[in-house]
Amino acid sequence: MKVSVVQDILSANDQLAMQNRELFDKHDICVINLMASPGSGKTSLILRTIDALRSQLRIGVIEGDIASTVDADRVAAKSVPVVQINTGGQCHLDAPMIQRALKQLPLADLDLILIENVGNLVCPVAFGLGEDLKVMLASAPEGDDKPYKYPGIFLAVDAVVINKVDLLPYLRFDVAAFRELVRGMNPDVRLFEVSCDTGEGIEEWTAWVSQERAKRLHGS
Amino acid sequence: MKVSVVQDILSANDQLAMQNRELFDKHDICVINLMASPGSGKTSLILRTIDALRSQLRIGVIEGDIASTVDADRVAAKSVPVVQINTGGQCHLDAPMIQRALKQLPLADLDLILIENVGNLVCPVAFGLGEDLKVMLASAPEGDDKPYKYPGIFLAVDAVVINKVDLLPYLRFDVAAFRELVRGMNPDVRLFEVSCDTGEGIEEWTAWVSQERAKRLHGS
Repeated sequence: MKVSVVQDILSANDQLAMQNRELFDKHDICVINLMASPGSGKTSLILRTIDALRSQLRIGVIEGDIASTVDADRVAAKSVPVVQINTGGQCHLDAPMIQRALKQLPLADLDLILIENVGNLVCPVAFGLGEDLKVMLASAPEGDDKPYKYPGIFLAVDAVVINKVDLLPYLRFDVAAFRELVRGMNPDVRLFEVSCDTGEGIEEWTAWVSQERAKRLHGS
Repeated sequence: MKVSVVQDILSANDQLAMQNRELFDKHDICVINLMASPGSGKTSLILRTIDALRSQLRIGVIEGDIASTVDADRVAAKSVPVVQINTGGQCHLDAPMIQRALKQLPLADLDLILIENVGNLVCPVAFGLGEDLKVMLASAPEGDDKPYKYPGIFLAVDAVVINKVDLLPYLRFDVAAFRELVRGMNPDVRLFEVSCDTGEGIEEWTAWVSQERAKRLHGS
């Protein structure tokens, strides 16, 4: 008798991420997983993105935090559907958390979901959520040496958004050296320079998001 | 016959942390576990502390990073004994890593060891290293809402050092509100305001470190 062999190549997280993915496909939703250090401006970038794209795209947000609803409250003030996930200590979001959160969002009425991961440059990278795009924020005050110390996230993302560029005159952050370093590690990565405070550079970022959503829709 | 019951209350990490602790006791070394987000200025605070205290204390340093020796190189330039731990992906230091690192330090010739943990506000909190003091850096550009989102670390530490106060004029960071919030969560915490760039506030911080080392020595 033949023994049937099942290759169990997907982790539980990956299996649920695939289910999330199928749901996004069914509803033609483009999903961005936004990762960064604490305090790098993830929520501020989400708010800027909502302001810039709400006239053309229906946007939903999932906020991940260890505790509190501080971020979700800021998003809800924009009258956008938002779910707060409190991980209760866990240092990253995972696919099952997203699966539960999706039940609270009006998927049939959304074009774009922005997921704000827990502030952490390490752990979130290892847990796919079913997203289309992984994006990281690099806050200029954190310094330009982060790619040396946290290579995993720079290798994993589709785009790096350098935030707080309005503070550059007061910092020693070499933008050209940073760009070169990141591109050396991840040649296909898109790089943006923005200030969520002044709005500088936001247009280029949102144009890219809009274009990625369009690509997804047309399967190109 | 009596059944002897061993209460296994210590995790493997805690047991090794206790062994580290015995080693520190034996050599009268005061050990500080420095935790913070990526790019908050942990290495800069260590360098400032070395400059301020090297005439009175013999200092050693353990640098923890996912990858690279960027930080240890900066410390080594000060001609201070330093060990770089590369965690190879792990998001925090643990007691066994410290135990191995200690074998590379001249313990009999040290009064103070500064341990720089991996940049992360979540995971390092759960792993005792055998240290005397847990200290966190809060970088002003990260914003004053971090205690809401990362309560665990604010509850766990003996001191919070607010760094980059030279940037306060360009930020919306309410120092008084932050202090009140942190003290509400952790009434015994010591709070410092420093700029590792300008040197502002460093004296108060190093006076405290020196005093904590003296307390330890005299068992008070």
